[in-house]
Order: sequence, then structure tokens, then C-alpha cells
Amino acid sequence: MITIALPKGGLLSDSIRLLKSVGLDFSAFLDSSNRQLEIWDANHTAKALLVRNYDVPVYVEYGQAQLGIVGYDILREKRPQVAHLLDLQFGHCRLSVAVRAASSYQSALELPAHCRVATKFVQCANEYFNRLDLPVDIVPLYGSVELGPITGMSEAIVDLVATGRTLTENNLVELDKLFDSTARLIAHPLSYRLNRDHLQAWINRIEAALPTAIVS
Amino acid sequence: MITIALPKGGLLSDSIRLLKSVGLDFSAFLDSSNRQLEIWDANHTAKALLVRNYDVPVYVEYGQAQLGIVGYDILREKRPQVAHLLDLQFGHCRLSVAVRAASSYQSALELPAHCRVATKFVQCANEYFNRLDLPVDIVPLYGSVELGPITGMSEAIVDLVATGRTLTENNLVELDKLFDSTARLIAHPLSYRLNRDHLQAWINRIEAALPTAIVS
Repeated sequence: MITIALPKGGLLSDSIRLLKSVGLDFSAFLDSSNRQLEIWDANHTAKALLVRNYDVPVYVEYGQAQLGIVGYDILREKRPQVAHLLDLQFGHCRLSVAVRAASSYQSALELPAHCRVATKFVQCANEYFNRLDLPVDIVPLYGSVELGPITGMSEAIVDLVATGRTLTENNLVELDKLFDSTARLIAHPLSYRLNRDHLQAWINRIEAALPTAIVS
Repeated sequence: MITIALPKGGLLSDSIRLLKSVGLDFSAFLDSSNRQLEIWDANHTAKALLVRNYDVPVYVEYGQAQLGIVGYDILREKRPQVAHLLDLQFGHCRLSVAVRAASSYQSALELPAHCRVATKFVQCANEYFNRLDLPVDIVPLYGSVELGPITGMSEAIVDLVATGRTLTENNLVELDKLFDSTARLIAHPLSYRLNRDHLQAWINRIEAALPTAIVS
């Protein structure tokens, strides 16, 4: 029996579709009346945990789930001790630097030293601006990062961009991309190494179900 | 003109009711179709920002909002550099230690040393167990902390309890209380000291509108 940690939010429906294609049905999680955080597939061969996307690596790291599906952005930000197995090729987005459309900046390098940058991705933003050798003052936020430049609290933001609609609606423009992100399959390192509960067979099935099999 | 940072979620409707009683109407934020994060009251005497509860102290600390409404739990966890003015007497809850109802523990002191404690309140939990002189392994989670003991990842949790319904539904029982929490009025220290934009007059009006005026 394996346990899989699934992320609430934008990656959930594609995660459930993928697992359904390998014979594991957790679609009860998509029912809006569902309050369960733990469900079994019909054959009782696997269990799924529904957790916040940021918590997926925690459950996998502690071995409470042998597998997990989570965005690459979170793996980059939290650097959890998990085995990073497959690029699942959905949930495409990018972590980008953005500023007010009315500003004159053409690239992140033009930002003034010691300016404020609001973000949920404190580690990634720090690493990026360190590499540019540009000292900035990171303002850690939990949500609605676009309010940073609107209120004048920050000159720039570092945030995930998918369609770009939120940026446009808030008169912001993208300057530079830190990296692209997609959903990834991760595993508890020890379970993976010891191939507990036939983990490798499940991973192979998931890989075979991908549009074009890519090992990241 | 003053700016007030309001928290999304459970404290929002009471916050809006309180401000309405002093003549500031931000009830547009309660409209489920609202997508605006920044609105003016009808007389353009004040502006409100709608932000995540965790972000309220950030906007106030950086002076983007002169006033903010936020739970005491967040003030205890984040220790922001803000002036802590009034207990607004709504949003009652408590931060508590809870364990599985089936366990034999009667108090937090009986927990085994080095056991795992899942929580969103890492600083508060660390401080509490340090004071008990009980070394524990804090597992930081972002949501659904009750899954910790259910999945066996942690022995205990430290989480907010209001009605106790979530605990009961998940077969958990409260052991000890860390502290009680309510909504608080906070201010940007410099704006408060200099009484910018007649801040003190607004604070007096809010205090007078409370059921029984208590300066915390």
C-alpha cells in the first residue's frame, strides 16, 4: 500500500487525472462538498492525503507519504530532502520579477540597489538578486504580492506568472524570469531506494502515462 | 487620509462592522464578486487594503497602512515592530496543544521528549516547549495541521481552537492552552507617535465603539 500527498489548489485536478490514468481514483477530492483529507482508492491499493502545496514535501520528507506531487517552485524555495523523480508536464508557470508598467526599468539589473522586493519566494528571490550582485530588501508576504507595487510598499515583486492576467489587471509588467516551473513527482528517499511497496512499479506506470516520457 | 489594513478570512466581517460604526464603510470587501484589494470609503476619508492576515503587520510595519486589524496570535508569532493599541473583543480563540483522543496524555508535560509537534505557529510552539523544558521536534505546516496526528507524522499539534469542532471531527483533544487570542488594533509606530492624519482621533472613535472599552 502506498500513500500519495496531493496538493490543494491549481495542480489538484491534473494530479487526479494523471493518477486515474494509472488506475488510482481519488476524484472524490474534487467534489466541492468533500471535507475528508485522507481517502483510499476503490481497490484499497493506495491512499491519498490532501494537503497544502507547501506541505506536500513535508509529508514526503517525513515518510508519511511515499510519493507526492508538487510544483517545482516549491522544491526550489524549500529545498526539501526528497527524491525528485519526474516532470509531470502540467502546471506550467514561471517565477518572474515584475514592476509597475509605468516604470522605466527594462531588466531586473536596472532596479536601484536596496530597493524593496515583495515576494512569497524569499529564498529564490534572495538567491537571484545575490547572483545579480544587486542588494535588495526582500519583503516577505503570504498573498496578493501585487499589492506591493500598487501601494508603493515595494518597487518590484518576484511572483509566479501563469497566464499573466493578474499582472495585466494590476498594471504590472514582467522584467525577467528566474525559472520555469511544472508539477513534479517526488518520493521519500529511503522508500525509493529500498523500493518499498513496489514503489518503482508505480513510478514506471506514472511515467508511461505522461504525454512524452521525460526524466527530469 | 488614513489607510487601514484588513485581514481576509474570519476576522473580516467583524472588522468591517466595527469600522462602519465609526463612519468608515468598507463593506464592498464582503461582496463575494469583489476582486479589488484596495477600496475607499464613500467620503474618501480613508482607504482599506484587503490582505492575508499574516501580511497585515507587514503593511503596518512598512507604513503603507497607518492602522491594521489582526489576530493576537499573529502578533505573538511574528513579533512585528508595530504599536499594539486595542483589544477589539472579537475573533476569540486560543492557541492550544492537542493530541489524539485515544492517547493517554493528560498534559503537554507528559509528551515524550523529542516527539514531533506539527504547527503553523513555530515560534510560539518553540517558546512554549522551551519554557516547559521539554525538547520537541517542531514540524512546520501551512495548513490542515490536524493531519499530523491522523497520519502518525506527529504526536501532537499546536493550533488555534475556536469552537473545538475541527478537533472533535478529527478525534483530537485539547491538552493545554498556550494563550487566548482576539482581534487587535495595531498602528505604524511613527505615524502613531506623530499623530499623523489625526490618527489618535480615529483610534479614540474605534475605542469608544467597543462594547466595553479596554486598553490592552
